[in-house]
Amino acid sequence: MPDLTALLQEIALLSSTAATLGWDQETNAPPKSVTHRAKQLSYLQGKIHQLQTCEAFRDGLSDLDAANQRELAHRYERATQLPQELVERDSEASSLAKAAWAEARQKNDFPLFAPHLSKLLAIAREKADHWGYLDEPYDALLSEYERGASTREVAALFERISAELAEIAAAAVEASSSIPSDFLHGPASIVAQQTLNREVAESLGFDFTRGRIDTTAHPFCTTLGPSDVRLTTRYEAHDFTSSLFGVMHEAGHGLYEQGLPASDFHLPSGQAVSLGIHESQSRLWENHIGRSRPFWEKWYPRAQELFPHLQNISLDDFLPAVNRAAYSTIRVEADEATYDLHILLRFKLERALLAGELEVDDVPQAWNEEFETLFGFRPASDSEGCLQDIHWSMGGLGYFATYSLGNLNAAQLFVAALKEEKVSRSFDRGDFLPLLEWMQTHIHRHGSSFLPQALMERVTGSRTDPAPYLDHLRQRFLG
Amino acid sequence: MPDLTALLQEIALLSSTAATLGWDQETNAPPKSVTHRAKQLSYLQGKIHQLQTCEAFRDGLSDLDAANQRELAHRYERATQLPQELVERDSEASSLAKAAWAEARQKNDFPLFAPHLSKLLAIAREKADHWGYLDEPYDALLSEYERGASTREVAALFERISAELAEIAAAAVEASSSIPSDFLHGPASIVAQQTLNREVAESLGFDFTRGRIDTTAHPFCTTLGPSDVRLTTRYEAHDFTSSLFGVMHEAGHGLYEQGLPASDFHLPSGQAVSLGIHESQSRLWENHIGRSRPFWEKWYPRAQELFPHLQNISLDDFLPAVNRAAYSTIRVEADEATYDLHILLRFKLERALLAGELEVDDVPQAWNEEFETLFGFRPASDSEGCLQDIHWSMGGLGYFATYSLGNLNAAQLFVAALKEEKVSRSFDRGDFLPLLEWMQTHIHRHGSSFLPQALMERVTGSRTDPAPYLDHLRQRFLG
Repeated sequence: MPDLTALLQEIALLSSTAATLGWDQETNAPPKSVTHRAKQLSYLQGKIHQLQTCEAFRDGLSDLDAANQRELAHRYERATQLPQELVERDSEASSLAKAAWAEARQKNDFPLFAPHLSKLLAIAREKADHWGYLDEPYDALLSEYERGASTREVAALFERISAELAEIAAAAVEASSSIPSDFLHGPASIVAQQTLNREVAESLGFDFTRGRIDTTAHPFCTTLGPSDVRLTTRYEAHDFTSSLFGVMHEAGHGLYEQGLPASDFHLPSGQAVSLGIHESQSRLWENHIGRSRPFWEKWYPRAQELFPHLQNISLDDFLPAVNRAAYSTIRVEADEATYDLHILLRFKLERALLAGELEVDDVPQAWNEEFETLFGFRPASDSEGCLQDIHWSMGGLGYFATYSLGNLNAAQLFVAALKEEKVSRSFDRGDFLPLLEWMQTHIHRHGSSFLPQALMERVTGSRTDPAPYLDHLRQRFLG
Repeated sequence: MPDLTALLQEIALLSSTAATLGWDQETNAPPKSVTHRAKQLSYLQGKIHQLQTCEAFRDGLSDLDAANQRELAHRYERATQLPQELVERDSEASSLAKAAWAEARQKNDFPLFAPHLSKLLAIAREKADHWGYLDEPYDALLSEYERGASTREVAALFERISAELAEIAAAAVEASSSIPSDFLHGPASIVAQQTLNREVAESLGFDFTRGRIDTTAHPFCTTLGPSDVRLTTRYEAHDFTSSLFGVMHEAGHGLYEQGLPASDFHLPSGQAVSLGIHESQSRLWENHIGRSRPFWEKWYPRAQELFPHLQNISLDDFLPAVNRAAYSTIRVEADEATYDLHILLRFKLERALLAGELEVDDVPQAWNEEFETLFGFRPASDSEGCLQDIHWSMGGLGYFATYSLGNLNAAQLFVAALKEEKVSRSFDRGDFLPLLEWMQTHIHRHGSSFLPQALMERVTGSRTDPAPYLDHLRQRFLG
């Protein structure tokens, strides 16, 4: 019988292998390879599940420190609640659904994706039933992404801020209407974009001997090993800021992953704690750094060199343009002022789907109606509406809420970090390495040793608190 | 207890997963990822070995058809002769050695690679001892790549032809000295090269919905699933023919893989039979097609479009230039007339290494001396000498001989195919799909159902016979 450490190392080898296959599927794999790839992933997930549920796993727990014991006991419990057959079915269904989603989105054909979504929704409900939940099925799924969070708590948090978010968004959009931004658009060769993106990511501290950047349709960051973190992005031929902010976002995730203790790769103490904390890191670098004046004071001359159409535009004109707010259909391209409205929409629809109050076939209509309520107009197509996100096709129901949690956490952590003089002084100079060091010390190196809310409390003095985020939005958009 | 089919499917999932990790290591993986990747691959190879040696494997054989039974019984026997610990050690050592070799080659520093080579040589000898052999350790290793071949037989074949090969090479080099070829060199953007390579590969029948082409330092072809065949190449900025012939070579391997029965992916009947047959396919498309007049009558106008420096060069000047012979240091760039001399060199050195007659530290000197005997000069550096090939760093001792077998088989199969009027008539017109169909019918679809020499005899009427190849070289180079 293997001991727990051997088991955990084996699980880490299998999980990172599955991650490599997943990365390849999103960046490289030829169209017809998907069926076999789905079988490989389903097989690997089945093996992982087998190891996570064996008795030696449970029996070895007592030898570990309290934090790892707590996390692994939780994982053991969650894993044993699911039959292996369900885990394999879930993996295969989502691999196939991803391919169907990509085609449906490209063809603007929701019915092509609908049967896959129905299958994944049924699987999600099945999982929620196995796991059990307090109030509603969404609880059981949210826990998979945000340890210790309850739907009730998240819904209450969102309710507290939704009116104010809507007000800020409306005022920001109104104020932005007079800010010119057309000059941002101009020829941006992919090579020039890649040059800038790489230089920026490197200067933030991303280690390219332990990672890389590739091209994909739906950008993400994934970890294939303790020294192998892959960022992905996509390129707009006429707007270099799209891939730049995208890479800064994914680099934020990547910096977190590169900051985890590599020797604990197989243990919770070497693994990211939750998506709400993960997203705090990506949004920190994308928004609090990437859209700040100190950042552009440092990088604007380089951007002007690489993109000559900016040469007659002053920094004072450029900066408001990259901080312009407007109502738009695509979440990942939304500005900070309107971003969370996209999350509120998804949170509402997902809860309704899981509770059986919304049918899959009615999703496009429900999406468009809810969208109109929030944004005042309807998406031009389902590709720009309910088909825009990859998450459902990956079986990622219960995931979106963590994006707004990430926004709140980012602002709260940024305020806490700036209280240290070394961090704030170098921030003003465009040197963000002390900020990274602060995050490494206070967040990254702890892995999953503290639960997300305990970590926030430890580092900032309170649990996730919307005040710093609302302050930040007000200051940025309403001056 | 799983049945044999389930076992074989599991092995196929694990093997194709390992192939994906290997492909990624050669095309993408960041430098520091290699340690973890080596552990992943060693783990997967260990698992595969475990499945290949379990009793259910042996017990299920009787249910299969004779050919699959024969091949799987052979694999079972070979696998059970090796301890799993050795399989895992071999895999990890070669993953690490590959990275060390790449660095040693880049820095022209053989001592950096020497300890890895010593380790891999010791492992190779250990494996040979476990497997047993008739005359010498090389036998045991050669069998891994060329089912049914013996060193004695291959050595006898090489002895029969080596004098004539050397004569043809010398005469071809002499005759080529007056053929101008400098005009081949000219600006060749990677995008233009990729365009031509893809159009050519597609026209030969390579299916891009089931495969792709990527960039690597040491080109290869690998199969990641029944519908996922990956070719790789590298680009010279001033010589488009280098990547073009490289891609045609790898596409030859890829067409074989795409022509295997996908439903038998987990069975020998759905897998390539040997490297000597595999290489016959790559050399066929690279040389018998790629350097022929009908091919260039069709493709030269397109090449002139993409590479304007050719616009004033006539086809009659171009064709001899791509068929020019010269003594050169790098095997993979060698012309047809001198190629096999590179193999004779490696065959001799490998046998001596495995027999304990040559020490690893003495390899550079032995290489240079033998090279001088064959080519009349010495390589300028070890990077262009004994460090040029990736094979030893992959633990691939006993492999090189199959390249010359491939050359012989290619010529013999090409002659056999041209006997069919449909094939020869369309070949003259620059349409090579009937040739592909012939190969699919006579070679590809059989997988490993016939042993290599039985297959050659079935298709051409005789075992591997050097006459067609020597005829081909004489005709091509000595008119």
